[in-house]
Amino acid sequence: MAKEITPRVNDYSQWYNDLVIKGGLADYSSVRGCMVIKPYGYAIWENMRDALDKMFKDTGHVNAYFPLFIPKSFLSKEAAHVEGFAKECAVVTHYRLKNSADGKSVIVDPDAKLEEELIVRPTSETIIWNSYKNWIQSYRDLPLLINQWANVVRWEMRTRLFLRTAEFLWQEGHTAHATPAEAVEETEKMLHVYADFAENFMALPVIKGRKSANERFAGAVETYCIEAMMQDGLALQAGTSHFLGQNFAKAFDVQFLNKEGKQEFVWATSWGVSTRLIGALIMAHSDDDGLVLPPKLAPLQVVIVPITKGEEDMKKIFEKCEPLMKELKAKGISVKFDDDDTKRPGFKFAEYELKGVPVRLAMGMRDYENGTVEVARRDTKEKSSQQFDGVAAYIQNLLDEIQKGIYNKAKNFRDANMHRANTWDEFKDIIESKSGFVSAHWDGTPETEEKIKELTKATIRCIPLNNAHEEGKCILTGNASKERVIFAKAY
Amino acid sequence: MAKEITPRVNDYSQWYNDLVIKGGLADYSSVRGCMVIKPYGYAIWENMRDALDKMFKDTGHVNAYFPLFIPKSFLSKEAAHVEGFAKECAVVTHYRLKNSADGKSVIVDPDAKLEEELIVRPTSETIIWNSYKNWIQSYRDLPLLINQWANVVRWEMRTRLFLRTAEFLWQEGHTAHATPAEAVEETEKMLHVYADFAENFMALPVIKGRKSANERFAGAVETYCIEAMMQDGLALQAGTSHFLGQNFAKAFDVQFLNKEGKQEFVWATSWGVSTRLIGALIMAHSDDDGLVLPPKLAPLQVVIVPITKGEEDMKKIFEKCEPLMKELKAKGISVKFDDDDTKRPGFKFAEYELKGVPVRLAMGMRDYENGTVEVARRDTKEKSSQQFDGVAAYIQNLLDEIQKGIYNKAKNFRDANMHRANTWDEFKDIIESKSGFVSAHWDGTPETEEKIKELTKATIRCIPLNNAHEEGKCILTGNASKERVIFAKAY
Repeated sequence: MAKEITPRVNDYSQWYNDLVIKGGLADYSSVRGCMVIKPYGYAIWENMRDALDKMFKDTGHVNAYFPLFIPKSFLSKEAAHVEGFAKECAVVTHYRLKNSADGKSVIVDPDAKLEEELIVRPTSETIIWNSYKNWIQSYRDLPLLINQWANVVRWEMRTRLFLRTAEFLWQEGHTAHATPAEAVEETEKMLHVYADFAENFMALPVIKGRKSANERFAGAVETYCIEAMMQDGLALQAGTSHFLGQNFAKAFDVQFLNKEGKQEFVWATSWGVSTRLIGALIMAHSDDDGLVLPPKLAPLQVVIVPITKGEEDMKKIFEKCEPLMKELKAKGISVKFDDDDTKRPGFKFAEYELKGVPVRLAMGMRDYENGTVEVARRDTKEKSSQQFDGVAAYIQNLLDEIQKGIYNKAKNFRDANMHRANTWDEFKDIIESKSGFVSAHWDGTPETEEKIKELTKATIRCIPLNNAHEEGKCILTGNASKERVIFAKAY
Repeated sequence: MAKEITPRVNDYSQWYNDLVIKGGLADYSSVRGCMVIKPYGYAIWENMRDALDKMFKDTGHVNAYFPLFIPKSFLSKEAAHVEGFAKECAVVTHYRLKNSADGKSVIVDPDAKLEEELIVRPTSETIIWNSYKNWIQSYRDLPLLINQWANVVRWEMRTRLFLRTAEFLWQEGHTAHATPAEAVEETEKMLHVYADFAENFMALPVIKGRKSANERFAGAVETYCIEAMMQDGLALQAGTSHFLGQNFAKAFDVQFLNKEGKQEFVWATSWGVSTRLIGALIMAHSDDDGLVLPPKLAPLQVVIVPITKGEEDMKKIFEKCEPLMKELKAKGISVKFDDDDTKRPGFKFAEYELKGVPVRLAMGMRDYENGTVEVARRDTKEKSSQQFDGVAAYIQNLLDEIQKGIYNKAKNFRDANMHRANTWDEFKDIIESKSGFVSAHWDGTPETEEKIKELTKATIRCIPLNNAHEEGKCILTGNASKERVIFAKAY
């Protein structure tokens, strides 16, 4: 029997958890709020990381590694940053344990108290700019284009596998520039890199935009983001890129001698995506039978299930498929021949559907004799019988088609759930009775945004880039507005 | 002027630090004992990681990720493990900060004290076996072959860049098996993987062996290691692989139903290498002019320095070299054309020597006109003039030759500093007046090993695998011994 997955209509949230746990992506741990990323989930992360890392390097960035710990005082140096980040943190206060008096357990050694507590990094702007101070003297040292792959900890009270956990994995880019124009250009460039990655690898259409002041990163002058729609109509922020102005340079006194021979504070950006993307990937595409993974990120792209009675048939089919597997591998396509004879084909079919393997081949003895093979695609569940000769090229095309098909399906869904509201009643009605995004006028004040959130739980997801100029009236206050913004409930 | 490097004979330790800092590999941080791995150092680590990761996957392992934090009580569950690891640890006691009364800083919120303290992982056996308990029920779930790339923290009092830091990066493999024979086989297999990596990528000859009981990993039944000799004759442990028996399975109650239908405790291994390898790489091969990097791990393998007056010459030489660069890249060789006209060629030569770039090409206008190019190899400092046509193939061969040359040099050095001692006086004399390893008889007792360490600071680095059986007498006690072991002072 296949593992049971709660259908989306019954309980969307339980459906998601079922996919994560039963799909073997992650597991709960004994540490509050911390998850274990299991091999299948980690393989997706490796594919994401490798694709992103290449994009970062192709745009001139290099990787480095900064300390896990941040001295407590560093967090107070940037006024806005401390408000946003210095609260829910893991705090290291001691550096030694010792045996308890009865010898049965270990206790914290009270003599090993740190003079200054250390914070497990929730993000690394402070510790990194503290180093940049030593690395930057002149405009010749700029730009500094550094990225870090790391774990970070934010002591979230309500956690959810991949979407919100106390510890998560991410990358954080931290760049330093001689001019604000260059820093803004970098901020936007990385937003486009994230959008490209989301669309071309994750098959996830996203809206690029700026955050309102309320939703800005703590310490940023401007926060850009990409926002995606999940199948329940909720928004998920899939990546952010921040223009930090001179805030961190001033906090850590990082000045450089500019071309005119004058001391000036350095301009900064930071940008990041995290293992949260795995949550987005699952929620955007999967169905009631399991995961639907875009081929470009799937740990296994093709599986061959032989349908045989006895070892002799198994051997024949394996020998028949061996050259195909070589051919696929030579094309860079991952493939597995499942010769486990303790499980029935039907069980295997369900298992690979649960795992979201994009293409499944099945071959029985009749296929073997007829020179055919059954090809099933995971996304649409379509099956067809194909000539075995030349099937490698067919599979290669099919994988491209699946990648595009998943994207188009997600895009059609998003477009169908993108609404426009011109009055408060319309707005409220859509937010309450329909799902999705609402494009509406807003008067630009944090107070109005806050009020709308209180009344509907919807927040401003972003002010889209290249937004059309349109005179209008704020849906709540009726005050003048010059452009629409995107509202939605969000993860 | 090139950056000044302290010569080895003056101060070996300062020479090492100069290479790390001036070579741009790492930097001190503001957090006690924690270093910053700078882009050039991190690029070496990426090359190491990628090569090792491929070797792990080729031997059937998969990656996963387990929590950074370990509940304090977990450390007490395995008796030997707690002795070895539960002492110098970073301890998280609180999960929140708040503004101080004067609003000027942040303080630890006393209300946010954890019920049970969390330890920042010094190694992950306990947290991983706590998960394995849920993942393993039957022999069908075995073997479990999992590796993790992660940061770990051990609160070292005396730290040294790369060699011993409070936080470091590493990989830790944790495997679970149905039989002790299979687990031992895995332990040895991974030792051989490490030795292959050290010899073929790091160009570092190593001795494979078992540790004496004193030097065993806390919780292991048997610890295998690879030991390398640095240029000062000291030993550096470059990797360890542990057969853990059923110790962790018993501590975390991980049992499986074996093929005979009986419950049995699982057999375990763990194995790891860390960023310490970068320290080994530096100390094994470098010289007084800077780093000497084996081509297989060098972030940049070939640099082209044009020797020109003015832009026009620069352009001519660049255009001449462009097809060569394409050809090298197509062969998988990394290459950079240094067109920075603010630095003189002599300065650049010194800089690339410091950085250990294996091959340097220089082309002036005379070369340009004659169809020649100067090729210099970093390891031997040999220079030669080569015909420009066909130089790509010459460079490819040269890189192989350099890789082998560096290995052979290190091997010859080690062989020349491998001594045999048959009496205590001989032994003491070698340890005190010469450098290197000493092969000598030992009576097999921890007490004798301890005494020898007290008297000479030398420890048993390993009992070599495939050691020749040889009757002899312990150098200290004169008691009977059946084989020689390797003694040395060590990092």
